[in-house]
Amino acid sequence: MTVEQLASGIQQGSRRCLSKGITLVESSRKEDQEKVNGLISLLPQKKDTLRVGISGVPGVGKSTFIERLGNYLIEEGHRVAVLAIDPSSPTSGGSILGDKTRMETLSAKEEAFIRPSPTSGTLGGVAKRTRETIRLCEAANYDIILIETVGVGQSEYEVASMVDCFLVMMLPGGGDSLQGIKRGILEITDILVINKADGDQKKLAEIAKSEYGHAFHMLASKYKGIKTSILSISALEDLGVIEVWNSIKRFRDVLVNQHLFELNRNKQEIQWFKRLVEEEVLQTIWSDKDKKIKVHDIHEKILNGAITPYEAALRLLSSMKLK
Amino acid sequence: MTVEQLASGIQQGSRRCLSKGITLVESSRKEDQEKVNGLISLLPQKKDTLRVGISGVPGVGKSTFIERLGNYLIEEGHRVAVLAIDPSSPTSGGSILGDKTRMETLSAKEEAFIRPSPTSGTLGGVAKRTRETIRLCEAANYDIILIETVGVGQSEYEVASMVDCFLVMMLPGGGDSLQGIKRGILEITDILVINKADGDQKKLAEIAKSEYGHAFHMLASKYKGIKTSILSISALEDLGVIEVWNSIKRFRDVLVNQHLFELNRNKQEIQWFKRLVEEEVLQTIWSDKDKKIKVHDIHEKILNGAITPYEAALRLLSSMKLK
Repeated sequence: MTVEQLASGIQQGSRRCLSKGITLVESSRKEDQEKVNGLISLLPQKKDTLRVGISGVPGVGKSTFIERLGNYLIEEGHRVAVLAIDPSSPTSGGSILGDKTRMETLSAKEEAFIRPSPTSGTLGGVAKRTRETIRLCEAANYDIILIETVGVGQSEYEVASMVDCFLVMMLPGGGDSLQGIKRGILEITDILVINKADGDQKKLAEIAKSEYGHAFHMLASKYKGIKTSILSISALEDLGVIEVWNSIKRFRDVLVNQHLFELNRNKQEIQWFKRLVEEEVLQTIWSDKDKKIKVHDIHEKILNGAITPYEAALRLLSSMKLK
Repeated sequence: MTVEQLASGIQQGSRRCLSKGITLVESSRKEDQEKVNGLISLLPQKKDTLRVGISGVPGVGKSTFIERLGNYLIEEGHRVAVLAIDPSSPTSGGSILGDKTRMETLSAKEEAFIRPSPTSGTLGGVAKRTRETIRLCEAANYDIILIETVGVGQSEYEVASMVDCFLVMMLPGGGDSLQGIKRGILEITDILVINKADGDQKKLAEIAKSEYGHAFHMLASKYKGIKTSILSISALEDLGVIEVWNSIKRFRDVLVNQHLFELNRNKQEIQWFKRLVEEEVLQTIWSDKDKKIKVHDIHEKILNGAITPYEAALRLLSSMKLK
């Protein structure tokens, strides 16, 4: 199949072509890069889509929530793509497949497309592939892109930098730091959802909601004048899921009205370009085999005091050719 | 004066030599880099020092606090260097000079060395120069290094990556997000100090203390098993400053006992080396004059949809030579 055929198949909504395109995007072979380049250039850039990042620790109920939300969105006439990033399982195995099985009713729908995003383990791996995959899904007329990520490693920051709205899910019992919520996550949160507000945990969820409210109140807004919404829901009992969607829509509308939506997307396009260049450059300089041995040697010398970091950097830089 | 003379002067405690050395470090001239390299290589690496970062918005009372703390430390037999980083005033003017004037009693002491760190405006500027300056001050037998930074821009993250303990100062009235505290700051905070807990504000400070306590309680610890200390003080009335110092010492002792202190420093040395290399490489690739024009052109093409970010990155990369 030629790249042209693939591009046209994707736009006609062929799931097979879309899957094939994403597999190509995920390929790390040099010769596939040109094909990906050709493919992306042939696809239209959609502006009327919504990209939502959904983060939270394992067990917080992301899959159940996404299944409920996805089904509701399809009823409302949308087409939904779900991309699941799990940096803790570099292969496509692990919790991702578990998630896929759990999203049973959603994955059976024609209007839904669910795809795990295996990461190569590198920082660049997540960002590079996911941005391209979003583009492909949008070209295939999925207008809502849900990007699921586990609250581990750097992946949330990367996902937050490629979506229009970043949603973080928490468990009730907010006072429990054992949840392992990274402190920095608040910085990138647009909407905070406390899930499992059911049964015995209803009260706990309300307490958590008020506590997180206090926390956000003390900190500067992500966007000036836009307050972070906090909702408590039960995805299991299907309580509050629609309210979350309304909250996402309200957030998007405010961004659009303040001309921040397009500005964000433009920034993200430029950032995508810069990140690709910088990642490739840094990967090239550190991954060179001879240099790896040299760098390992340098680390040892720095740590036993034989050489200062400054001297080490100068030496390595002078041995490099950049242009 | 030769580099050897400068190095020996610094170690003998000559303020003139130390100032000269720092000026050399801050020079952006290529030919000075080799001199800096020689100088740093000649200086011993001190391990029994303590580097404390102190951050907070303008007006929170950092200078008053540092003056009190510095004077107390000198009474206790320490020698104290204060480095002030202010990314909002790239020249040495602005608030920094104001601060210097305000630290009157401290700056008059023989055992204190106060130096504003003008930044070149770039990210690299802060990190590169400050790390070298720390090394110089330590070689000049200043055993406590206080690094003051304003809660603006990226500087706190950089400072946090080069100190043993990162202290953040807040105003009472914790519920007031107008303080402009960035959300992500909590992630790097080791000790939180609420200043101006005097007069009418005593109660407010206690409320803020408890609210921040709740916030930290909900989030994962920076170091496993080490709780972030929160203290309310009045630097103006000299209430609680010694308690802050005791808290810093306790924090250091825990790090030392868990072998995290040395591990951190080792990591920071390696990071210093890597950052220098990466900054130089990235600066080189983006600062090339011809490339600047090209990149500007590429940005425009990306934003009007003439070219995808992926294609743009591939094109630029293929025109570059890396080795």
